[in-house]
Amino acid sequence: MATAMSFLCPSPATFKGTEMPIARFRCCSSNTNSVSLNTRTEPQPVTTFVKAFAPATVANLGPGFDFLGCAVDGIGDIVSVRVDPEVRPGEIRISDITGHAPNKLSTNPLWNCAGIAAIEVMKMLAIRSVGLSLSLQKGLPLGSGLGSSAASAAAAAVAVNEMFGKRLSVEDLVVASLKSEEKVSGYHADNVAPAIMGGFVLIQSYEPLRLIELKFPAEKELYFVLVSPEFEAPTKKMRAALPGEIAMAHHVWNCSQAGALVAAVLQGDVVGLGKALSSDKIVEPRRAPLIPGMEAVKKAALQAGAFGCTISGAGPTAVAVIDDELAGNAIAEHMIHAFLHHGNLKASAKVLQLDRLGARRILD
Amino acid sequence: MATAMSFLCPSPATFKGTEMPIARFRCCSSNTNSVSLNTRTEPQPVTTFVKAFAPATVANLGPGFDFLGCAVDGIGDIVSVRVDPEVRPGEIRISDITGHAPNKLSTNPLWNCAGIAAIEVMKMLAIRSVGLSLSLQKGLPLGSGLGSSAASAAAAAVAVNEMFGKRLSVEDLVVASLKSEEKVSGYHADNVAPAIMGGFVLIQSYEPLRLIELKFPAEKELYFVLVSPEFEAPTKKMRAALPGEIAMAHHVWNCSQAGALVAAVLQGDVVGLGKALSSDKIVEPRRAPLIPGMEAVKKAALQAGAFGCTISGAGPTAVAVIDDELAGNAIAEHMIHAFLHHGNLKASAKVLQLDRLGARRILD
Repeated sequence: MATAMSFLCPSPATFKGTEMPIARFRCCSSNTNSVSLNTRTEPQPVTTFVKAFAPATVANLGPGFDFLGCAVDGIGDIVSVRVDPEVRPGEIRISDITGHAPNKLSTNPLWNCAGIAAIEVMKMLAIRSVGLSLSLQKGLPLGSGLGSSAASAAAAAVAVNEMFGKRLSVEDLVVASLKSEEKVSGYHADNVAPAIMGGFVLIQSYEPLRLIELKFPAEKELYFVLVSPEFEAPTKKMRAALPGEIAMAHHVWNCSQAGALVAAVLQGDVVGLGKALSSDKIVEPRRAPLIPGMEAVKKAALQAGAFGCTISGAGPTAVAVIDDELAGNAIAEHMIHAFLHHGNLKASAKVLQLDRLGARRILD
Repeated sequence: MATAMSFLCPSPATFKGTEMPIARFRCCSSNTNSVSLNTRTEPQPVTTFVKAFAPATVANLGPGFDFLGCAVDGIGDIVSVRVDPEVRPGEIRISDITGHAPNKLSTNPLWNCAGIAAIEVMKMLAIRSVGLSLSLQKGLPLGSGLGSSAASAAAAAVAVNEMFGKRLSVEDLVVASLKSEEKVSGYHADNVAPAIMGGFVLIQSYEPLRLIELKFPAEKELYFVLVSPEFEAPTKKMRAALPGEIAMAHHVWNCSQAGALVAAVLQGDVVGLGKALSSDKIVEPRRAPLIPGMEAVKKAALQAGAFGCTISGAGPTAVAVIDDELAGNAIAEHMIHAFLHHGNLKASAKVLQLDRLGARRILD
């Protein structure tokens, strides 16, 4: 049974006078630094139905741990929202979940990534007179290291925003989606920001939220070889594996690789991107041993010609980069074989390009 | 009395056969990974006199600690080299040192930054039949945090290379100059690389040497406000102040700022560059308290409108950035005042642009 959930934005009656101060609206968001809403009246739906897609994302990218991510094209989650007179005004209901592991996800919007982000967007827009029902199609498997929860949140945030006339900024949508990530895997935007914005995104700070779009040159070819083994790598366990303290030499090394990675993205240097991606001395060495076969998979990818390879997000997916699709397919075969041979794990692969658009409305 | 110093490159007689293997030549350099010398015979001088200039450099740039630096225009060191029949073939002699603190510098080429770099270049070129005398004009004060030793080394390396027909690559010249830095302040290329290459340079690795040129857009304005107090901040002491271990949260923060700094340089975002430059949570907080008034100087710079401010190199010079020369002059006044008022130190200031050329031959 789907659960309806109202949210806590004060109704107009709680304010005195006819014009509500913008600040009151902004207080509805826990992180208000980037809310750019400039309307003083509740926006009305510009349509009764919106469907939105958000792509998979690769976070961390080696030395970009916790502040860098990118979107990959072709796989992702879809969220549809519909004006529903049967849902109480100002409330939201999750009507159905299909695709990957639908039974593992709650239909209580407060415990569902898409629901939480949708609620946050409704809060930001101060929607009080319209009820919505939400449908979630999970194109991404859970816990794969491909930003599954972020894709659900991003698609939901974009869908609700589109329904009410696209009043919110990209930063607002990231803040709304972060509310969701916070409950699932921690307050990190390295999946949600690229899921919403597309391309490569660097998160410079949260207070204030400062996102830097790193444009990879349009004319350059870049393929991600994503190989997902049948293995669960819980984010919590992967995070517990991290060191609390880091030696200065390793810090300087990883910092310089992070800088090199950013430069490679902006300069369209795929070889340099791979080299930097592969060079993490802090996180990957701690996490790779927890994923059976990962170290051999990386070696296999590099031996097969990949420019670089690391763990996607918190794993277990391995990500390699190359500038040619056919070569990518061959690398994928070697990586699958290495997972089986060295980790005793079956794995499946996809060779995908960069998603440059991010979450967007799609036709029904 | 000037001292002559021969170097240890084997003479042709030590090889059998008429064609010496390239590898033997390359073994003359302790770091041979980038030596691109492709001649099998000793090059002859293309001129009898060369004068070269190398600019001052700002290393670290906040979160770019130990791997990022840039060159600033208008101040630097000059090295002249001359074919000198009175110097034994294959040897070098420092004939004179003028400018800043000439008495503090050794005229023994083995103990002089310019001398060491010149010897290294002669080794790489396998010069055995020509003797050189070298003259050094110190335009940069010692121990100021402006890459004084690096400028001497870079100018010397370029001068000798020019004399023998520019056979060496930029990487070779950096390796030669690193030999000098190693003796003075450690094996770090964040001053010598930009001193030789100009602009912003990221040092990704040493083995192999991988230098990334970060092109700041030509059409953008960028001014460095460099304020040097009358205070000695020995590199050794400043390095001892650094923590051995770094908390993960600070590591991630600094890494993201380093990435943002690189992005800001490549995107020509001077405001973002300043913000990132100012954001170091690891090195600057430990070093600033050792330079009287530095924390107040930074505050004064930011209050006066600078986009960012930090310590240049290991200090004591403070560096602020801005996009306008007049504003830079005003910021400089505030910084000088803060050094005097809060640190009881007299200081002098320069407002300089980026040097985009690096070390180069100049006319006599």
